[in-house]
Amino acid sequence: MQFNLVTPRIIEHLKRIVGEEHVLTSSEDLARYALDEIEERYRSLPEVVVKPRAPEEIAAIMRLANEERIPVTPRGAGTGLSGGAVPIYGGIVLSLERMNQILEIDVDNMMVTVEPGVVLGDMMRAVEAEGLFYPVDVSTLESCHVGGNVAENAGGARAVKYGLTGHWVYGLEIVTPTGEILRLGGKRIKDVTGYNLIQLLVGSEGTLGIITKITFRLTAKPKYVLDLLIPFDSLENAVTQVLEVLLEEINLSAIEFMDSLSIRAVERYLNLRLPHDESEAHLLIQVDGMEEDVVWRTGERVYQKLVRAGAKEVFVADNRLTRERMWRARREIAQALKALYKCVSVEDIVVPRAQIAEAVHYIRQLSYRHRLEVPIYGHIGDGNLHPTPVSNERDEETWIHDLDAFLLEMFRIVCDLGGNLTAEHGVGLKRIKYLPLVMNKAEIALMQAIKRAWDPNGILNPGKAVPLDSVL
Amino acid sequence: MQFNLVTPRIIEHLKRIVGEEHVLTSSEDLARYALDEIEERYRSLPEVVVKPRAPEEIAAIMRLANEERIPVTPRGAGTGLSGGAVPIYGGIVLSLERMNQILEIDVDNMMVTVEPGVVLGDMMRAVEAEGLFYPVDVSTLESCHVGGNVAENAGGARAVKYGLTGHWVYGLEIVTPTGEILRLGGKRIKDVTGYNLIQLLVGSEGTLGIITKITFRLTAKPKYVLDLLIPFDSLENAVTQVLEVLLEEINLSAIEFMDSLSIRAVERYLNLRLPHDESEAHLLIQVDGMEEDVVWRTGERVYQKLVRAGAKEVFVADNRLTRERMWRARREIAQALKALYKCVSVEDIVVPRAQIAEAVHYIRQLSYRHRLEVPIYGHIGDGNLHPTPVSNERDEETWIHDLDAFLLEMFRIVCDLGGNLTAEHGVGLKRIKYLPLVMNKAEIALMQAIKRAWDPNGILNPGKAVPLDSVL
Repeated sequence: MQFNLVTPRIIEHLKRIVGEEHVLTSSEDLARYALDEIEERYRSLPEVVVKPRAPEEIAAIMRLANEERIPVTPRGAGTGLSGGAVPIYGGIVLSLERMNQILEIDVDNMMVTVEPGVVLGDMMRAVEAEGLFYPVDVSTLESCHVGGNVAENAGGARAVKYGLTGHWVYGLEIVTPTGEILRLGGKRIKDVTGYNLIQLLVGSEGTLGIITKITFRLTAKPKYVLDLLIPFDSLENAVTQVLEVLLEEINLSAIEFMDSLSIRAVERYLNLRLPHDESEAHLLIQVDGMEEDVVWRTGERVYQKLVRAGAKEVFVADNRLTRERMWRARREIAQALKALYKCVSVEDIVVPRAQIAEAVHYIRQLSYRHRLEVPIYGHIGDGNLHPTPVSNERDEETWIHDLDAFLLEMFRIVCDLGGNLTAEHGVGLKRIKYLPLVMNKAEIALMQAIKRAWDPNGILNPGKAVPLDSVL
Repeated sequence: MQFNLVTPRIIEHLKRIVGEEHVLTSSEDLARYALDEIEERYRSLPEVVVKPRAPEEIAAIMRLANEERIPVTPRGAGTGLSGGAVPIYGGIVLSLERMNQILEIDVDNMMVTVEPGVVLGDMMRAVEAEGLFYPVDVSTLESCHVGGNVAENAGGARAVKYGLTGHWVYGLEIVTPTGEILRLGGKRIKDVTGYNLIQLLVGSEGTLGIITKITFRLTAKPKYVLDLLIPFDSLENAVTQVLEVLLEEINLSAIEFMDSLSIRAVERYLNLRLPHDESEAHLLIQVDGMEEDVVWRTGERVYQKLVRAGAKEVFVADNRLTRERMWRARREIAQALKALYKCVSVEDIVVPRAQIAEAVHYIRQLSYRHRLEVPIYGHIGDGNLHPTPVSNERDEETWIHDLDAFLLEMFRIVCDLGGNLTAEHGVGLKRIKYLPLVMNKAEIALMQAIKRAWDPNGILNPGKAVPLDSVL
């Protein structure tokens, strides 16, 4: 890819499109758009930041950028963990923060239409006020933007019952890399007219189009929720029980897992103490439903089964306060590790869920062999783990060297178990070099063919999700 | 598109690939592969039929066809309603009927892996024997192939709760138009590594790849099922009630609708009598769940609400025999209309479900104005209707003329209501000319760009799903 620099003439043009006050060029401003929640070492400055308010403005920006061969990196709240919003080739960062309106809650059709810059938690509360429910529960829900959720196909704790973000996306308005505005899908629950371009865009990490409106399907709000915190001495045992439970129970909305290293870290960070923190595995299980007795009976069955199988104790939360306390520990693990260690790499592997105990076993062996501390936590019901290598002793160079060696081996193991590189964080820029481990050339070539066909000059978020043409 | 004819040399080559007995060329044989369940007038003969047994054979066929510019039409059981399996440019029909093995039922991961030629009902029973459940309930389940279900993204009666076929597809093996074998996805519940090629292939009507293996996710089998048959005098009233019920109830697995014209037809065809067959709307509602009392309480709430709203009566089926009788009427409507009328066009529109009463109202007005009988039935919970224009009085030419005029107006109305051409039957060959009504040029161009990038010679099922390049 050959890109051009952003000249003063182009900046003037951008100002005419979005208004002078929405074009940022000072070095302090640019620095605030140089990184997301990926590691600091991936920082890369844009040449200019633009904050459009309307799809027509974005279309004009894309036509300009396409003509001038300027790379464009779309950006939501910058809470992504794989560097999707980092402008690695400089150029334009296109921030969607001003497009932050909830446009319509259609109760009869059980659909909400929003702009991409709406904060997830705000949308969740707005639809709940109408008796409706958007179930995708991302850890950063109080800061992340729904546009980013769609671009990365965010998962979160309730995917075992409710799926990922993409399962709820029924309509999209996008601006294509060449500056066309398209409206795809809508409020139709079933539709097979033409190729499924919506699900192609979901999770494409901003490389195929810029999302300017989203219509999410909603469901009825569960009236009762129950959470169980269960310390186990053996992860293998815990997993076996979970697999059996899932054959009978359909109301489990979350099955989370934290190992003792993760728990110790979050205890230090939040200055609290969790029961049985020496246990190999803590499970956090959520049951939800429309009827109180059903939820309790389900909880009771799960409880009995796990106690018989050797759970040390079961702590039950049926009220908001206790629930928040339990979940806070789980939600804050990544933050805790980032605060406590100089070097941290949050990983996001997935294996078939029956292979999760095996995966943990091998990853632990690997961590001993590589002399790396690797706390593991994640979504056991989905087969999705976040092994997070950390270090305080290594200098940057040694860290990168040791981490690379560890990751390469870990991804090979994961692949052998029928798994993959990333379940919910995205390939972004940090996993792109590992794609050939898990995909053959023909598959990568088909992805590149789509990218090339839609974005002939390769200007939209280059270097993310799919390798540049020149790589193969 | 310029295609070449199948020469004796090419037939010899095909025989070497799949074995002589699996290459058909007699005119009787070819005639059996010239049509699916679309109208007779779309019949088109292939030049040769091949029945491969393995992906490697299919890869060899595709490389040959690609080199020689021979069109290839993949075919399952031929139960499709939009002509997806009709070889409109002649060439090769590639029948997947010999690839009919259930390869693995993985109970721990709740996944089944099958070849495309497995009959849907056989797969459903096989997984139910293991306590698992594949919920997509297509009317032709005793004859259709799962490969066709995936290629067309089949829907069916339970989509309101369980979604379409695509929601359950987690792994695919495909052969590309240029003869590469790709394995996409697997037994991973969550995975955002790269673009979502699986959902791009689902519903692409055999134009992007030939499906050679499928891994479906399964769920726990509901232990209790209850069906309610409810005659209503006013469709509008029935729809209003259904929308309200859906805000509170999550256990409704089907909400079907039949109008009096449909009911009369099926009564004549099956020689039976349904209660209150003069009613404007019969609803057929299914409740399922894991606990008997929950299913009954749900049924009771729905029953009470609908009776208060003016339902004439509610007939309850909680056993297999009564259920089969109720559902048989619903399932056989399309067959009944085909048997009773000389001219029949099964349509498959979708609107946002809150707009369904309005859609029926306009379609009825239109049918009076066009002097066409149009029975309407379908999946009210999904906003998916099957208005089915029929006639016994018209000659072929008049019928085509009148039908075209009616459809054009109907699709415009549907589009104005936020709807679309097809919810579950596919564009196939019969709706392709209407695509520009519902999609702008840029969207069609992006679909064509994908098709061209994957299938540069345009040999795989040309003329289906997406217009040929030359159309725009």
